[in-house]
Amino acid sequence: MADTVRMTLDEVRSLATEVFTANGLSPANAEIVAGVVTAAEADGTHSHGLFRVPGYVSCVTNGRVDGKAEPEVSDAAPGLAAVDAKNGFSPPAIVAGRALAVEKAKAQGIAALGLRNSGNLNALWWDVEQFAAAGLIAIAMSTTRSYVAPWGGNKALFGTDPFAFACPRQGKSPMGFDFATSASARGEIQVAARRGHAIPEGWALDKDGKATTNPKAALEGVQLPFGGHKGNALIIMVELMAAGLTGGAFCFEAEKRAVDHGAADSGPAHAGEVIILIDPAGYHDAFLGRIEGLFDSILAQEGTRIPGDRRYVARARSHEEGIDCPAALYQQIVDMKTG
Amino acid sequence: MADTVRMTLDEVRSLATEVFTANGLSPANAEIVAGVVTAAEADGTHSHGLFRVPGYVSCVTNGRVDGKAEPEVSDAAPGLAAVDAKNGFSPPAIVAGRALAVEKAKAQGIAALGLRNSGNLNALWWDVEQFAAAGLIAIAMSTTRSYVAPWGGNKALFGTDPFAFACPRQGKSPMGFDFATSASARGEIQVAARRGHAIPEGWALDKDGKATTNPKAALEGVQLPFGGHKGNALIIMVELMAAGLTGGAFCFEAEKRAVDHGAADSGPAHAGEVIILIDPAGYHDAFLGRIEGLFDSILAQEGTRIPGDRRYVARARSHEEGIDCPAALYQQIVDMKTG
Repeated sequence: MADTVRMTLDEVRSLATEVFTANGLSPANAEIVAGVVTAAEADGTHSHGLFRVPGYVSCVTNGRVDGKAEPEVSDAAPGLAAVDAKNGFSPPAIVAGRALAVEKAKAQGIAALGLRNSGNLNALWWDVEQFAAAGLIAIAMSTTRSYVAPWGGNKALFGTDPFAFACPRQGKSPMGFDFATSASARGEIQVAARRGHAIPEGWALDKDGKATTNPKAALEGVQLPFGGHKGNALIIMVELMAAGLTGGAFCFEAEKRAVDHGAADSGPAHAGEVIILIDPAGYHDAFLGRIEGLFDSILAQEGTRIPGDRRYVARARSHEEGIDCPAALYQQIVDMKTG
Repeated sequence: MADTVRMTLDEVRSLATEVFTANGLSPANAEIVAGVVTAAEADGTHSHGLFRVPGYVSCVTNGRVDGKAEPEVSDAAPGLAAVDAKNGFSPPAIVAGRALAVEKAKAQGIAALGLRNSGNLNALWWDVEQFAAAGLIAIAMSTTRSYVAPWGGNKALFGTDPFAFACPRQGKSPMGFDFATSASARGEIQVAARRGHAIPEGWALDKDGKATTNPKAALEGVQLPFGGHKGNALIIMVELMAAGLTGGAFCFEAEKRAVDHGAADSGPAHAGEVIILIDPAGYHDAFLGRIEGLFDSILAQEGTRIPGDRRYVARARSHEEGIDCPAALYQQIVDMKTG
């Protein structure tokens, strides 16, 4: 048996849809979440692609997330759209609130889409890119499960709380990025543990609160914010904005509520997310033209790149050649088709 | 002669107002900028206090900034207030646009205040704290002069581009922070150079693009983003938001335009800034109560603190005891009273 299985993106989507539908997701939710998985595979971010399918499923089968949830959209204020995800996954909630949020941003110049009671498992790039493709600047912040100690402390309190940004470009795919406000994503430590590699200093403390480069000790301990006190400040901002503002659970609240069913990627329940949307034409018409001057100036220096560009290279190749799924993971997912 | 001069905050304000008025600022602008200087001294951030008075003055006397500018406020969209600072300093422009921006945020739930053609010299904490004191969450981003290389490059392109956040609290002063998205503020390198200290690795490259811990070599070279590629992504976001969105100059454009008159702190001209304002009552009423649970959980861990709290400790002490100004700086400023 080969180590990997080559799949087209259509095959990724079909397989994920079938597995999700067989394991408690409604057809509508299965289609959306399968699209998120496929987009991650296409962009080369395999840690959020098929690798995460068992995690999505276990969330539903262990009852932490409702796979059949029907998100409820409400008009909170002229500039604020709200979605109660009804403890379903966040992508269907974003899809449900998208039209109202875009309409508000285009009418007011700025708006926000707030999600509460959602299960956030995907990389935030998917969340923001779709708004940038609709011509809006998007800034997203989301909570996750509680893995990260506050700066100076040594007990898990914050999530790896991602922050994402996307900006439309004229005649090009959006520019943007997403990253964990912790020093590393949890998945990076898990990968190091599996491969027996050390992790860099500054990523984590062990269970006794001592700095460690041992990934297994790190997984039993706590992760740290990125960039010292600046990253710590950003994590607190993400918690206040993604959970406090929207009415989602803070990471530490979600963790208290959740019984850990042993599924490492089973995600938070009742979490929150906020997406701020700005119409760049609101202030003046020259935005799209002017920003190309900034991008040109960056690329004029050797060794630089525009955030997001590596995704688009991977995406073009994936559409052409398909993607490679580790054979064991492929078999694990195929076996889930029967629910 | 003593090394320092003890001053009350009223004396700081009076001296700064008098010096600014004698050196080309209108009375209205002098009062506002002197208030910013006094607030920085009160909070213990002396690098943005009296230390910066000569820089404010030289900006005006060398013609880079118009000290008598009368900012022009416009209503760009239901959620967007715009201020053309008319190449004056940013604080008078913020004061000019504040009422309209607050009104919009409270009516729409979210709004933005965009500044263009402004000279941004102050720490952004002042910019956001006043909105949090008015009950709004505030996120600010601003450009500065061009000192920072893009990640992977070695030529100055970005500013030290600060990012700030402030959040109201019930019965307490706002929580918040501001920081340069470069690894250090420029002033920290200048201080190290004066004292003959080395700077940490990762802060700067020398003029040949090689990593350096020599502060003088760093000042001749370029600064680096904080937190590696994540900080680099944030700097690009700040440039796009603070300059691209508002119509202010990107740092590299401002630098091209500016003739350097040798005043290290003379600041950027025609710069931009954006302040996003959110009414936390927009989504639900429990915000102010719920966030105290987060702050309590942070402080329950030994060694932690809430961003901004050290400022308030310093502020209380300064109101009580006054502040100490280095004698040479005091004399330099007093000598400027005659213009």
